[in-house]
Amino acid sequence: MAATDSAPGNGDHRERPGRIMSGEMAEQPAVLRRILEQGAPRIRETAAAVAARAPRFVLLTARGTSDNAALYAKYLLEIKLGLPCGLTSMSTTTAYGARPELRDVLVITVSQSGGSPDLVASTRAARDAGAVTLAVTNNPDSPLAAVSEFHIDILAGPEKALPATKTYTASLLALYLFVEGLRGADGAAAGALPELAERILARGDEVRRLASRYRFAERMVITSRGYGYPTAKEAALKLMETSYIPALSYSGADLLHGPLAMVDNISPVIAVVTAGRGGEALQPVLDRLRGRGADLVVVGPAPQVAAASAGFVLPVDGLPEDLQPILEILPLQLLAYEVTLARGQDPDAPRALAKVTETH
Amino acid sequence: MAATDSAPGNGDHRERPGRIMSGEMAEQPAVLRRILEQGAPRIRETAAAVAARAPRFVLLTARGTSDNAALYAKYLLEIKLGLPCGLTSMSTTTAYGARPELRDVLVITVSQSGGSPDLVASTRAARDAGAVTLAVTNNPDSPLAAVSEFHIDILAGPEKALPATKTYTASLLALYLFVEGLRGADGAAAGALPELAERILARGDEVRRLASRYRFAERMVITSRGYGYPTAKEAALKLMETSYIPALSYSGADLLHGPLAMVDNISPVIAVVTAGRGGEALQPVLDRLRGRGADLVVVGPAPQVAAASAGFVLPVDGLPEDLQPILEILPLQLLAYEVTLARGQDPDAPRALAKVTETH
Repeated sequence: MAATDSAPGNGDHRERPGRIMSGEMAEQPAVLRRILEQGAPRIRETAAAVAARAPRFVLLTARGTSDNAALYAKYLLEIKLGLPCGLTSMSTTTAYGARPELRDVLVITVSQSGGSPDLVASTRAARDAGAVTLAVTNNPDSPLAAVSEFHIDILAGPEKALPATKTYTASLLALYLFVEGLRGADGAAAGALPELAERILARGDEVRRLASRYRFAERMVITSRGYGYPTAKEAALKLMETSYIPALSYSGADLLHGPLAMVDNISPVIAVVTAGRGGEALQPVLDRLRGRGADLVVVGPAPQVAAASAGFVLPVDGLPEDLQPILEILPLQLLAYEVTLARGQDPDAPRALAKVTETH
Repeated sequence: MAATDSAPGNGDHRERPGRIMSGEMAEQPAVLRRILEQGAPRIRETAAAVAARAPRFVLLTARGTSDNAALYAKYLLEIKLGLPCGLTSMSTTTAYGARPELRDVLVITVSQSGGSPDLVASTRAARDAGAVTLAVTNNPDSPLAAVSEFHIDILAGPEKALPATKTYTASLLALYLFVEGLRGADGAAAGALPELAERILARGDEVRRLASRYRFAERMVITSRGYGYPTAKEAALKLMETSYIPALSYSGADLLHGPLAMVDNISPVIAVVTAGRGGEALQPVLDRLRGRGADLVVVGPAPQVAAASAGFVLPVDGLPEDLQPILEILPLQLLAYEVTLARGQDPDAPRALAKVTETH
């Protein structure tokens, strides 16, 4: 299988649980390199063509893992370009037939497969309503790419495991380069990502030790703020769809508005702490959680990890905060994988899921 | 206490757990009547003044329960007016100092207290950036009302219980009348709400029997689609902040994209089924859940309740689908209350929560 040629244990142990997901996680540094070397010039051209249309508002449309990638793009667009953004409530179009007036609106649809009928229908409707449409997919021959005016190929190669991993980080990097291109920048800081990703993915043993504390967890809370919030949501989704542990994600601010009541010393919390303003804004929430005796695991800078129950120190080497989400998710993907194995389940084949989900 | 004058058991049993929340839930028909009789004319005037400014995009800003009310408004605005909408990621302004260009943008901030500093700061920033600003609060003397160009008072009276109930349904009705006003309609269909709400709230015994099945639940999934989706999110929040049961809410479509793996016959599901297109779009999800042997409780029309494990038949008497969310949440508020009592906890005083949450 082409998708897993670089997977550890490929070939000899074809039936090993999680073999496919493990291989696809390991491919991520190579995928990031491919986007930077082969994809970036075309992404910049696409961005220049979209920028020439001067959109004033952006709507992002996606589901599942791609929805978390779309949320990352929302932060980039609002913070770096001052473009107001919204996430599409797809049923307004598909169930209720809404036909919004979309002049001056850029509609970005993110989908690994590019095949879900509701995404195709809502993108077609947006284009008919006057929007500039951009599809971000892993399949340039997909129906979604065909109906969109512009297309970005995330170049991740075939993804066979049901939990999406490499297509998530590939979507984030493609969206980063696109937003940089919109403002006429080249996104050169992203060049450091492949090597940093390699260093993180080499620390599987460390994550396996962390995973042991969740073997019997009945629920988990994952929190962050700012650029790390999409990571918290994606980590929760990954944990749920592989291990079936109910994992609830909240922005640190929302956590204080209600769900904190649920957190106590038997409800473990994972905090994604960016090195930057998002991490600073999360600090009062971390203090409050520690004050309640929560079991707090931090993915982030060394001082915050040292002040927590345990954690994973994320090497960022001065990487800008807006690129850190592409690294933060890696130990959390590994964690979902290891927790699932520890619970005797197969991360490659969660119950009830199909790879291309056909929602209408 | 003025807020609980109409509460059952008020006065004689001041220490009864949940007395305050129970009283405030019971006030809801009276609050809805007050908005229709005393609030509606001013809401229509405000809507006419906002419509004259011809906004082309809407950003909605809120946290916690008010965020779910804002999501309801998003469906109304997109479906009935074709106005593209977004929910604000507040940290882009408060942590990262983003200054989006907000010409032609209506910014609606929903907050029961009108007191949270981050909401005040982001609304002030939006007004400075050229937005038309509207605050929807339960306190016309609040800082948020003061910084906003327009204000709608939801007239719910003081809310003392930590879980918000009457301010949620009051916000929904005020937002409904506002959106009707934007399109020059009078929202007369809402006149049926108070009496229907009374009929629902009189069925506490029925909800108490439903609640017994969740006494030992370790997690719950709540799903809906379209207009019922904000109800699913609010019901999950209410259950979590009172009973501490991890309650995960998903749109029916998102549920099929991953979290379905978590649902099996020990993970109960509650589905909010509107009588209308949202409910129709949810039907394949209900079929799939039944096929997996899920314990499915339906709040909605009689046929869907009959096909489920159990449920609560919602009387809607031909009420348009877009008004049903104001009724749907009532049995789910009662459910959160009853489950919490059944677990020996006090719905009035969840751990760790303050009534006005000061996030920055």
